[in-house]
Amino acid sequence: MPGGERHERIDLAQRRAGLCRSLHAETTDIVAIEMSPVNHQVRLAARPSGLPRPSDWDLTVQDIPTPAAGEFVVAISHLSLDPAMRGWMNAGASYIEPVEIGDVMRAGAVGRVSASQHPGFAVGDHVYGNFGVQEYALSDGKGVIKIDPSLAPLPTYLGTLGMTGMTAYFGLLEVGALKEGDTVVVSGAAGAVGSVVGQIAKIKGARVIGIAGGEEKCRWLVDELGFDAAIDYKAQDVRRALREDAPDGVDVYFDNVGGDILDAVLTRLARGARIVICGAVSQYNATDGVRGPNNYLSLLVARASMTGMVVFDYAARYGEAAAELAGWLRDGRLISREDIVDGGVNAFPDALLKLFSGENTGKLVLRVGSD
Amino acid sequence: MPGGERHERIDLAQRRAGLCRSLHAETTDIVAIEMSPVNHQVRLAARPSGLPRPSDWDLTVQDIPTPAAGEFVVAISHLSLDPAMRGWMNAGASYIEPVEIGDVMRAGAVGRVSASQHPGFAVGDHVYGNFGVQEYALSDGKGVIKIDPSLAPLPTYLGTLGMTGMTAYFGLLEVGALKEGDTVVVSGAAGAVGSVVGQIAKIKGARVIGIAGGEEKCRWLVDELGFDAAIDYKAQDVRRALREDAPDGVDVYFDNVGGDILDAVLTRLARGARIVICGAVSQYNATDGVRGPNNYLSLLVARASMTGMVVFDYAARYGEAAAELAGWLRDGRLISREDIVDGGVNAFPDALLKLFSGENTGKLVLRVGSD
Repeated sequence: MPGGERHERIDLAQRRAGLCRSLHAETTDIVAIEMSPVNHQVRLAARPSGLPRPSDWDLTVQDIPTPAAGEFVVAISHLSLDPAMRGWMNAGASYIEPVEIGDVMRAGAVGRVSASQHPGFAVGDHVYGNFGVQEYALSDGKGVIKIDPSLAPLPTYLGTLGMTGMTAYFGLLEVGALKEGDTVVVSGAAGAVGSVVGQIAKIKGARVIGIAGGEEKCRWLVDELGFDAAIDYKAQDVRRALREDAPDGVDVYFDNVGGDILDAVLTRLARGARIVICGAVSQYNATDGVRGPNNYLSLLVARASMTGMVVFDYAARYGEAAAELAGWLRDGRLISREDIVDGGVNAFPDALLKLFSGENTGKLVLRVGSD
Repeated sequence: MPGGERHERIDLAQRRAGLCRSLHAETTDIVAIEMSPVNHQVRLAARPSGLPRPSDWDLTVQDIPTPAAGEFVVAISHLSLDPAMRGWMNAGASYIEPVEIGDVMRAGAVGRVSASQHPGFAVGDHVYGNFGVQEYALSDGKGVIKIDPSLAPLPTYLGTLGMTGMTAYFGLLEVGALKEGDTVVVSGAAGAVGSVVGQIAKIKGARVIGIAGGEEKCRWLVDELGFDAAIDYKAQDVRRALREDAPDGVDVYFDNVGGDILDAVLTRLARGARIVICGAVSQYNATDGVRGPNNYLSLLVARASMTGMVVFDYAARYGEAAAELAGWLRDGRLISREDIVDGGVNAFPDALLKLFSGENTGKLVLRVGSD
């Protein structure tokens, strides 16, 4: 067990019943999660093949950590659920180290400092950090940001004012080099990043076409978020729809999905188009390997580029982006939508799957504790 | 027949015998090509599926054209053979219009002005232009460049000092944004563009690894052209070889081939790598469609870009590049190698196939007439 942490595995059947056993209980009495003075955690048990299964996770309990000098403890209120998590579960080098078997699953989270021996963080401070899928996290403050719940609800700091918003902002404006008047296409448009990308593009004077799954999501994009058009990839031929909605071609394509949709957009590039590769949610659970874009030679025809982006590279400029995004939120020009799942950390394995079935609209967040 | 040109089709069996019938001969006497005072041409007869077959071409003869006012005639000495020609034979939009069925096949060529009614071009001038697969071309001077055979042999104006050299120069330095100290990998390294790319990269202070087919080509790259390493993709595992030859990753990959080699290099990208998509000779004759790079998500991991290039975009700067390339040639820092095929225009269909079987080393050129 890494770091010699003491934790006890919870039987999956108990978890399914939404219950768990406290380490502190001398008896085998069942205690509701909300009342248990322990730290429930979700650990990686096995590297999945395809969609993560219940057996890929260990649900464990641990004593709530006690901070040493220079440390503090965060009582987590909300966890961020991200398609990228699927990649972190795989072995091998990527843009970030994989989560090791037996480790608490990596996750961005917000919460409140519940105990502190750290001069920079006081009990009651609200914070964002990479706290993991658990109820309480011990931290030395590295990578932790203080957040202000009076400016925006805590989950918004996981979405529009968090990594999601940063990804959309820098991906579109820096990597995509958006210019006023551009035609922008974004896939996963009703998802966390996509919905922010499209709105920023509108604010910056672009024509915006969203690609999403289902009539309801598409209606939301056009009616609520102000997209110029939305393509329902489940009901429409994306390539044909793009010919109508982007008759002069696509200047910026922000890709969250890969697969057939990436191939369809490649056939409609304008000269000098920029494709931002942010993710490929259609490919993350492929058991027979990722399928690349067969139409990639359109890059040559269009003198276009396809560039990968990782938000961490812009860490030094998060403040600048957050200030601009917060301003747009305040002015009502940007709508932040969070899709909040209840059930505590033990609901994490099922909640994660919603990202891959396309069930969520906006930022998918797991509520773990009280604000 | 486009433009109402008068031409007569030659039987393929005659072409195979290396002979043709003159339109001017009243009898059926056989006359050697070299002696015939007519214009032999190769026209597109059908759009190929897979590798072009003899039946995809019409070999025709025509009277030598007579220039009207503002026109001149070029007696072509050498034709450029390019993998891109395969793409020009397909229907549909690309970076350039397809060659129409019945038209003389498009080709860059060099030759000498043999008749002129154009004030800018005198009989005896040597010129480069898009003259097509024929012995004599009528021109109004559009896109025609005068060349100096005392500075370099005529075929060099199809290679290092022609479109080949321009493609290598702008692709590597502009699209690839080469920096001193970069590790550069080039595929099709013993080919026309690749061999120039690698040499320019060496001149500019990069470490250069060429990927080519066969021991002989690889030896030539290292021993004659000064590449730091060469990988024989027919005998070696490219991915493993790159791990040894580019231990710190690849900063610039200049891709002429696509397919498995592109996928292999994608696994070895350095942070911020630039992939220049110049061509995909491994894919041009695929009958089941182009296969894209399945490892494209490495772009994300490496924050890398993949950008398509078409040399025509740099037309305004050809002079600048040609001057620098000519200087390197003169100083012996750059070696220009042309692989010259004899046989006249009727040998074009077979000669073209050498590009796809990987038989040529350096720039493949078809000799059509005397310098």
